[in-house]
Amino acid sequence: MFEYTKKMIDSIFQQFRIQAYLSTVKKLTEILGIDFPIIQGGMIWCSGWELAAAVSNAGGLGTIGAGSMYPDVLREQIRKCKAATTRPFAVNLPLIYPQVAEHIQIIIEEEVPVVITSAGNPKLYAPTFKEAGRVLMHVVSSAKFAKKAEDAGCDAVIAEGFEAGGHNGREETTTLCLIPQVVDAVTIPVIAAGGIADGRSMLAVMALGASGAQMGSRFVLTHESSAHMNFKQAVLNAQEGDTQLTLKELTPVRLLNSPFADQVKQAYLDHATIEDLKTLLGRGRAKKGMFEGDLLEGELEIGQVSARMNNLISAGEVVRQTMVELLEAKNKLNVFLT
Amino acid sequence: MFEYTKKMIDSIFQQFRIQAYLSTVKKLTEILGIDFPIIQGGMIWCSGWELAAAVSNAGGLGTIGAGSMYPDVLREQIRKCKAATTRPFAVNLPLIYPQVAEHIQIIIEEEVPVVITSAGNPKLYAPTFKEAGRVLMHVVSSAKFAKKAEDAGCDAVIAEGFEAGGHNGREETTTLCLIPQVVDAVTIPVIAAGGIADGRSMLAVMALGASGAQMGSRFVLTHESSAHMNFKQAVLNAQEGDTQLTLKELTPVRLLNSPFADQVKQAYLDHATIEDLKTLLGRGRAKKGMFEGDLLEGELEIGQVSARMNNLISAGEVVRQTMVELLEAKNKLNVFLT
Repeated sequence: MFEYTKKMIDSIFQQFRIQAYLSTVKKLTEILGIDFPIIQGGMIWCSGWELAAAVSNAGGLGTIGAGSMYPDVLREQIRKCKAATTRPFAVNLPLIYPQVAEHIQIIIEEEVPVVITSAGNPKLYAPTFKEAGRVLMHVVSSAKFAKKAEDAGCDAVIAEGFEAGGHNGREETTTLCLIPQVVDAVTIPVIAAGGIADGRSMLAVMALGASGAQMGSRFVLTHESSAHMNFKQAVLNAQEGDTQLTLKELTPVRLLNSPFADQVKQAYLDHATIEDLKTLLGRGRAKKGMFEGDLLEGELEIGQVSARMNNLISAGEVVRQTMVELLEAKNKLNVFLT
Repeated sequence: MFEYTKKMIDSIFQQFRIQAYLSTVKKLTEILGIDFPIIQGGMIWCSGWELAAAVSNAGGLGTIGAGSMYPDVLREQIRKCKAATTRPFAVNLPLIYPQVAEHIQIIIEEEVPVVITSAGNPKLYAPTFKEAGRVLMHVVSSAKFAKKAEDAGCDAVIAEGFEAGGHNGREETTTLCLIPQVVDAVTIPVIAAGGIADGRSMLAVMALGASGAQMGSRFVLTHESSAHMNFKQAVLNAQEGDTQLTLKELTPVRLLNSPFADQVKQAYLDHATIEDLKTLLGRGRAKKGMFEGDLLEGELEIGQVSARMNNLISAGEVVRQTMVELLEAKNKLNVFLT
């Protein structure tokens, strides 16, 4: 399926490196110290040190998802990542988690170069990271919060659309509608997320003005992701319309269809209250589904692009393949628009 | 705001015409007999002959929305359109409407060059249109139905994403996720719809492999659209998150926030049955809202892009401005990717 020789890839990469010097992409890749503007989403239960190190070693930005880790686990994961790559990597830190103060201390102590905050206001924590000389990016789902992130001192924003897997914004703005709004609202680089799984979708968000792309679901389907094989297989099997944004009264989350997702649908038909939904969700379902592979009772978080992903490859291949496809898609555009 | 001289625009258009000969866009523009691959969506109550003729005269494909017209009104609208333009134009025909047979007869008799069917299966009617030598396109919200449309003999498909205004697919697939799937599923040209309102969003869908773009909401905000001025003003005022896909148990429809939309929300909180929802919706609310300007009781159908549209211009300006922006956005991409 992937027919490029290493030499061809190197040559395409070389070309990209040179051209990037002229551009805003350069700015993002310079800020982050990476070769290619591909950021791996820091997904709970799927992105440990193996995935992060593999993405960073391939020239993108790998990310450890701290949202599913106790402080001591996070420290261990960071140390293993540092041992596995000399390239910059990130930690994704949901700001609503109870142990956020301990997480921040560990991130500072362990000298993690890039911090991606989400699910909260970065204003409180930005000075700590900036004083420590770290690059800070915040995940947003609206132009309004992108502006707030810029004002708080963030170096870039990651703007994530409705089609993304996992927790999601309440506005339901899709990536196609969101990115131009965010690009117009801020002066810092914008990374697009949600609906990106290959080079043509990366080119599309760059056409909208994004400086780079964050991919989550695509990296779930890699050898290095810590997702359970059952979950990976379920994602491989996903068809159009097989994910749904649900539990909007709690925190909206995009889930793959499953017996648990059916239970949620039934709860709505039964006029469940918010308390009923909280009880049904309970605790630990994300771990159960994505990490332990329980496809019946587990919560399976994945994006709409799951419908068009059909291979399990290495994380480095994802980075290389996406870059090659990006340039190919660009050349196709050149044929009819110059 | 729009600083291009006519001469500059003509030159850019000339350039596009030449380059288009090399491409799949050529194929679409040739099939339709138009200059630029911009299709105006055939929206109920907003797109009569004035809008359709203006778009066609500017080199795009104007469309009369038959969904809100009695047969005699449709015939009159078609005749007025033919008197106002010598260029090809289309009629959009929802196949679920009771008077569809009469509509089809009129479309054939009046020699409408392009027919866009939606909301139903084109298989039944395709032979009639094809035997009469008409171009037939069908609106879909999934790759599965795109394939069916191709098999039925359609010349192109219009693939419309979740962010689009008005009636919408049940899969909730966004344009960014939908277009690559549809492009991979069919060999006929694919026109993207939903979330497109300017050149950069048009470039984005072309990066995904679309041969052209259909814009609806953008053309509501034109002098020639038959939308009521109150509705146009409400669209101008729309902010992020101000539209919502609702009434999913009936036919999913994207509405602008309004007192009627609030009534629908309250009905859900009160555990309304499908019958309750039907009773609440009643008949004629779309006309009341969009055509008569009743912002309290009317149904206001508009896309998510309403949040980033802020001017009321002529339909011809929309076509020209979009093409200029498309080429500008393309040149920006060229700076960092070649």
